[in-house]
Amino acid sequence: MKRRAGRAHYDRATIDAILDEGLVGHVGVCSDGQPYVIPMLYARDEDRIYLHGSPLSRLLGDLVDGMPMCLTVTLLDGLVLARSAFHHSLNYRSVVVLGEGRAVLDRGQKLAAMRTLVERALAGHSTDARGPSEQELDATKVVALAIDEASAKIRAGPPVDAAEDYGLPVWAGELPLRVAAGAPVPDSRCAAPLPPYLSSYGRGDA
Amino acid sequence: MKRRAGRAHYDRATIDAILDEGLVGHVGVCSDGQPYVIPMLYARDEDRIYLHGSPLSRLLGDLVDGMPMCLTVTLLDGLVLARSAFHHSLNYRSVVVLGEGRAVLDRGQKLAAMRTLVERALAGHSTDARGPSEQELDATKVVALAIDEASAKIRAGPPVDAAEDYGLPVWAGELPLRVAAGAPVPDSRCAAPLPPYLSSYGRGDA
Repeated sequence: MKRRAGRAHYDRATIDAILDEGLVGHVGVCSDGQPYVIPMLYARDEDRIYLHGSPLSRLLGDLVDGMPMCLTVTLLDGLVLARSAFHHSLNYRSVVVLGEGRAVLDRGQKLAAMRTLVERALAGHSTDARGPSEQELDATKVVALAIDEASAKIRAGPPVDAAEDYGLPVWAGELPLRVAAGAPVPDSRCAAPLPPYLSSYGRGDA
Repeated sequence: MKRRAGRAHYDRATIDAILDEGLVGHVGVCSDGQPYVIPMLYARDEDRIYLHGSPLSRLLGDLVDGMPMCLTVTLLDGLVLARSAFHHSLNYRSVVVLGEGRAVLDRGQKLAAMRTLVERALAGHSTDARGPSEQELDATKVVALAIDEASAKIRAGPPVDAAEDYGLPVWAGELPLRVAAGAPVPDSRCAAPLPPYLSSYGRGDA
């Protein structure tokens, strides 16, 4: 993707809207100069982003130790098809957050963070599913990343072709892409009815 | 995401299938211990992955200088909804490739790489769009990353609940997610008919 200066945004409303539509972010850390990028479920709660996982996770261990991290969230909105290969592009919205993680140890905040993680993935579900036991709380590591140093990049709209190419007999425009949900698949022991929030699932439809 | 050892795969067929279905990867680099993760269009060609962009891109400059990099590609396949918040998960397929980029300078290989990048994004389109001029070739930097050190992680299937939770009256199962294309939107100066490969677009449908 071409990341032109004109595509940068720093206002929190733009940044938050992208973070709230996304579901999986890509977390980068460095170890002896080697970068590692791992996909992780995340959820924003006001001025911070929560990540969670097993206490045995080496990545989460590094994150709570204050290792510098980068969380990048990308929403792919479409292919931009130009009349020349050179001017092909993608429509997307992305956010990059830089900072240092810190462990969430307070049990109340940890519980709230876990509820936020479930609720952001599937609104309505956090009140249905059984909440974490004391043992499960202990078996979950939660990391908070403050949204202090963050920026968004957005590319939208039609292709921009070279002036002399507009006469070429080539289809040009956008092919919109989005995340779509299929029909829910109950597991083999599920006897409960399908909740309404599952039959109408969509991201960014609000 | 919980990344258990049992989910790791190292065979090239599994890795290549994920790389070929993906469109945008997340590229990580380190600068003075600070990681940066940037979304980029990529395309696999046999044993290497191509990235491209403007020669003015600082990231691409770092990559061709042999800075250690990580390319991560994630395909989100669904939400895994358990009877307890603790056992919620995601179904996904991801690949992590570690290595060092090198600049593609040979004009023939550069042209082939650019064709591969267009063709992987939209099969059929590389023969329709005007190919790069000499000037456009010069204005494009292409980076190759060898697929030497790569691994895949896959989580698929229903939730795994705690034995005592199966009796809870909570819906449990999978909500499949996929990338879906909307109706193509021609730009305001487009007079060409819609090509057949655009009206039947899908990723991973092959």
